Amino acid sequence: MEKELLLMLPGPVPMPERVRYAMMRQAINHRSAEFGAVYADCVRVLKTAFGTKNDLFVISGSGTAGMEAAIAGVGRDKDIACIVNGKFGERLYKISQRYGKAHEIRSDWGTPVNLEELKTQLEAGAQIVTLVHNETSAGIKNPAQEIGKLCRKHDALFIMDGITSIGGDTVEADAWGVDIAITGSQKCFAAPAGLAMVSVSSRAWERMTKNPPYYLDLPAYRKSAGGKPMETPYTPAVPLFLALREACLMIEEEGLPARITRHQKMSGAVQEAAKVWGLSLFPKIDKLHRYSSTVTAIEYPADVRDDEMRALIKKMGIVIAGGQDHLKGKIFRIGTMGSVSAPEILATLAATQHALRKSGFKITGDGVEAASEVLG
Amino acid sequence: MEKELLLMLPGPVPMPERVRYAMMRQAINHRSAEFGAVYADCVRVLKTAFGTKNDLFVISGSGTAGMEAAIAGVGRDKDIACIVNGKFGERLYKISQRYGKAHEIRSDWGTPVNLEELKTQLEAGAQIVTLVHNETSAGIKNPAQEIGKLCRKHDALFIMDGITSIGGDTVEADAWGVDIAITGSQKCFAAPAGLAMVSVSSRAWERMTKNPPYYLDLPAYRKSAGGKPMETPYTPAVPLFLALREACLMIEEEGLPARITRHQKMSGAVQEAAKVWGLSLFPKIDKLHRYSSTVTAIEYPADVRDDEMRALIKKMGIVIAGGQDHLKGKIFRIGTMGSVSAPEILATLAATQHALRKSGFKITGDGVEAASEVLG
Repeated sequence: MEKELLLMLPGPVPMPERVRYAMMRQAINHRSAEFGAVYADCVRVLKTAFGTKNDLFVISGSGTAGMEAAIAGVGRDKDIACIVNGKFGERLYKISQRYGKAHEIRSDWGTPVNLEELKTQLEAGAQIVTLVHNETSAGIKNPAQEIGKLCRKHDALFIMDGITSIGGDTVEADAWGVDIAITGSQKCFAAPAGLAMVSVSSRAWERMTKNPPYYLDLPAYRKSAGGKPMETPYTPAVPLFLALREACLMIEEEGLPARITRHQKMSGAVQEAAKVWGLSLFPKIDKLHRYSSTVTAIEYPADVRDDEMRALIKKMGIVIAGGQDHLKGKIFRIGTMGSVSAPEILATLAATQHALRKSGFKITGDGVEAASEVLG
Repeated sequence: MEKELLLMLPGPVPMPERVRYAMMRQAINHRSAEFGAVYADCVRVLKTAFGTKNDLFVISGSGTAGMEAAIAGVGRDKDIACIVNGKFGERLYKISQRYGKAHEIRSDWGTPVNLEELKTQLEAGAQIVTLVHNETSAGIKNPAQEIGKLCRKHDALFIMDGITSIGGDTVEADAWGVDIAITGSQKCFAAPAGLAMVSVSSRAWERMTKNPPYYLDLPAYRKSAGGKPMETPYTPAVPLFLALREACLMIEEEGLPARITRHQKMSGAVQEAAKVWGLSLFPKIDKLHRYSSTVTAIEYPADVRDDEMRALIKKMGIVIAGGQDHLKGKIFRIGTMGSVSAPEILATLAATQHALRKSGFKITGDGVEAASEVLG
């Protein structure tokens, strides 16, 4: 192979050299002041990205492990209202079914959340609400702030999956009333896959339920993080922590507001290209919902085949995502997460434009030029 | 700092350069043929190290996650007989309490397993037996083969934690009747911390119980591993898989029998030094139990203080382990896991001998010379 493919996926995303090279260090003792300092650096920056002053932990596991730690932590035998308008909302619902009485609040993937149904369920006594803030499968950003307000009004706990928003888009967990927020390392942080980060409010601590999985037991994480040195209850994936620390330091250097603006600009360029090509963005948004600024989901025009188009793009060394489950063949998705910048966007849009043409689609305008206008 | 400390712990252990450098690669898609091939390479070598033809999976999480996947997989509401003669046996017992009716079969740490009590419990209907093969906290190797025979006789499932034996000592999971065996990446494999490996027999598949944690759901791992390409159900910690693959290839190159012999030789040198110094090994063994060949636990002589002695050794750039929990201050432990070879052993024993002398202990002979005799 000549070199790595350029991954323009909604995670995993390319990592900066500094982040990757941090992993090649020799093993260090994870019960040492040195490791404690690494963990503390991560937590400091993560709290900024989460918009929280709550306790925050890093779990050695994927984002799904973080989702489960949240639901298992407070959800056993509880009434859980699960908002679903995409694949990851479905996952929160499936996990909730293992612990409590889960009630799905379903909309079609990529369409607005049914807030009326949520109100009905809260009035009927739902104790917990789960939401995916940025639904990667459909490219829609859900109204977390409004949902947080409803949760507070009805004294329900609010669990928010911010796996593809935190670190790349504005998240204000405390101001929005999020009790447990979750993210993952391999998305907007541009760190390697394998770590989940979870913040826990005092309200959530007061309402912890019994018998969570041993490995995902939030009180055990709190106890170990409170020690000197700061530790994890079970052996952490040390190289991933070293990489995450470096990624966090890079976020501090860039500045979170600048990073969020960059994500908006990159996704804005992709959205503009789609419009100029004559294609539709997949999500159906309203005044509360937004197009995601970390992944753009675009509808395929009739007669363009997903496998053929993505193969053409891959021939040019670039990987974009198709649709998942029932959206396979209907949409394609371009990730704009992490350290992504203009060269990757321009290359990806040029390859996509070429592939659209080769697939027989008549573009209505030069999307690459339009994107350059946004980026320049 | 001048350079990394030499970790002579019972995990994490120093990693070979090849293993560490494998992690610095750019992100690759974990739903690709390339990642599938990495996973398959790991599984091929792991099956040899486990001594199994059973299904085998790699979970992104610590060894504890592997223990829990095993117990949660088959143990809900079952009678579980938990053999405990050290800290990790206790952990299996604690995890078992979250899922089933756990019964502790307790001996003092580092003393032989109570096989009579095990027989009694099996006769009384225990459906699952848990054992730590190599009890790191006490330096004792338990009689897995005999326990496996008893499990088969009574048709109980046998869960064996091989976290600090597999890859460094002889394990024959299939021949011994182990239904679920578990290991971790940062021990005898000399890979980074953060991965658990779990093998599952057909008997165990037939007896899976309902509602395991979502993240640790063994049937989900089986389904994804059976796909083309081979996958994990949730995003894997890709850099750790890349490192584990390299570590596995190094085991193939060295050859497992040679690796096991090397572990025996290294621990033999440590045991010999202790004897010549006039110190006692901590475990009380009998004809069924053995001293561990991956970690040697040595009793402190009267008047030698743990914190002082280990501080003296650390001044020479080497970290050895103390005792855990109630053994704190009573024993010290030297790990001989992974890629450890003569130079590290000689340096560690020379530093320990010096520290013993400085602590006021009169050694009865030159343990370093005696160890050299073993190693030369």
